[in-house]
Amino acid sequence: MNRPKILVTNDDGITSNGIRLLIEIAKNYGDVVVVAPNKPQSAMGHAITIGHVLRLEPVDLYDGVEAYECSGTPADCVKLAKHHVLKGEAPDLVLSGINHGSNTSVSVLYSGTISAAIEAAIEGHPSIGFSLCDYDHSADLSHIEPYIHQIIKEALDKKIQKGLTLNVNFPPKQEEEIKGIRICRQAKARWLEKFDERHDPMGKRYFWMSGEFENFDHAEDSDEWAVQNNYVSIVPCQYDMTAHHYLAELNTTWNL
Amino acid sequence: MNRPKILVTNDDGITSNGIRLLIEIAKNYGDVVVVAPNKPQSAMGHAITIGHVLRLEPVDLYDGVEAYECSGTPADCVKLAKHHVLKGEAPDLVLSGINHGSNTSVSVLYSGTISAAIEAAIEGHPSIGFSLCDYDHSADLSHIEPYIHQIIKEALDKKIQKGLTLNVNFPPKQEEEIKGIRICRQAKARWLEKFDERHDPMGKRYFWMSGEFENFDHAEDSDEWAVQNNYVSIVPCQYDMTAHHYLAELNTTWNL
Repeated sequence: MNRPKILVTNDDGITSNGIRLLIEIAKNYGDVVVVAPNKPQSAMGHAITIGHVLRLEPVDLYDGVEAYECSGTPADCVKLAKHHVLKGEAPDLVLSGINHGSNTSVSVLYSGTISAAIEAAIEGHPSIGFSLCDYDHSADLSHIEPYIHQIIKEALDKKIQKGLTLNVNFPPKQEEEIKGIRICRQAKARWLEKFDERHDPMGKRYFWMSGEFENFDHAEDSDEWAVQNNYVSIVPCQYDMTAHHYLAELNTTWNL
Repeated sequence: MNRPKILVTNDDGITSNGIRLLIEIAKNYGDVVVVAPNKPQSAMGHAITIGHVLRLEPVDLYDGVEAYECSGTPADCVKLAKHHVLKGEAPDLVLSGINHGSNTSVSVLYSGTISAAIEAAIEGHPSIGFSLCDYDHSADLSHIEPYIHQIIKEALDKKIQKGLTLNVNFPPKQEEEIKGIRICRQAKARWLEKFDERHDPMGKRYFWMSGEFENFDHAEDSDEWAVQNNYVSIVPCQYDMTAHHYLAELNTTWNL
């Protein structure tokens, strides 16, 4: 029987600690192919490259693993992997991450990591995005390894429903061990931006954007509650943006 | 009574024909402020600018309208507009577009135009994204003008439910007049990519990505059906990506 074909990508770039660990774990479960960005592509959302050319170069970074670095976005990586590297062959599983930083709540929309997983779901491939809620790129990952094994094993065994992806967030390393896994919904929250106005040496104005996460949702079935309380959160994600509950109101109340 | 404050942005850039018309129409209904990209930002999805600085410059392009060009993405423009230009004052309506090209179905995920409108929804502001299903930047827009007036008037009158945005797509100009407006759901479809492999003058390989839209969904309540049949489609959009229907199965069937 053929081993599963597992495609691995991320948004922090092909040399980050997160993807390194994910590749090592994935090798236990199938034949791994890596197509990942050649530079950081955090917060690129579901951007794709049109109007510019794409580069794709083989790299010898991971023992016994076919790997390519790509000049494009995470979503580009999935598209190039499927249609060029795998020559249209469907991967059995697409893994994205491990992201260095949280992707709970609305961060799914900004995240290159999760957008790559959603792109795989659109293409019809089972996929999982993994994120550690710690922005330090050298953060300890040892506490999450057993959970990544477990989730990949279950995903290969049970099969994720077609068109869905799993958004997995891990709490940062703490003294207390992780309490377990919780199946969650996306928390109601947003980022509140601040703009730091400065002037460059030529006197021209520029801004640094920074933000604080503002969570309105403290319910125990939300992903943010889970990671705040030292659980692994898993949110199954779909990509139909339609507000189905509002169709009737538009049809009946609005003069359109 | 104060006139409504209307923020206008897009992804094709601040000088495109689409935003020019949208600004002219919006001026009839309120005080318009424009913050839009200083270059094309198509297919940027919900990308935001972190790790790089942002530029914002006032421009004198539109008579009597306060306008700024921004170096960032459409989502950046909404954030900078809200927190810097409007100094935190909530706009009464955010308009994005008119995009030169279709944003039906899954294109909502790739679209900078619709991501700007969704960003506004996340911030709590009523918003509408407008797109013409014609990729020609000099395409005739005259047939859609009355519909834009009508939709803006209704949105200011009836108020869009908080957290939602309207994704409006117009059919291209045809001999037959537009048949009317239909309230729709996002069609089930995807883009099938092709990669054209070439070599640069230095002998290094590069790729052009192109795609064909593959529609699996011919139901009459889908946005793609509407524009194909010369109707204006309006899809109300939300930003909860949770696959609520799959939570129970993960909880009961999977060993997590």
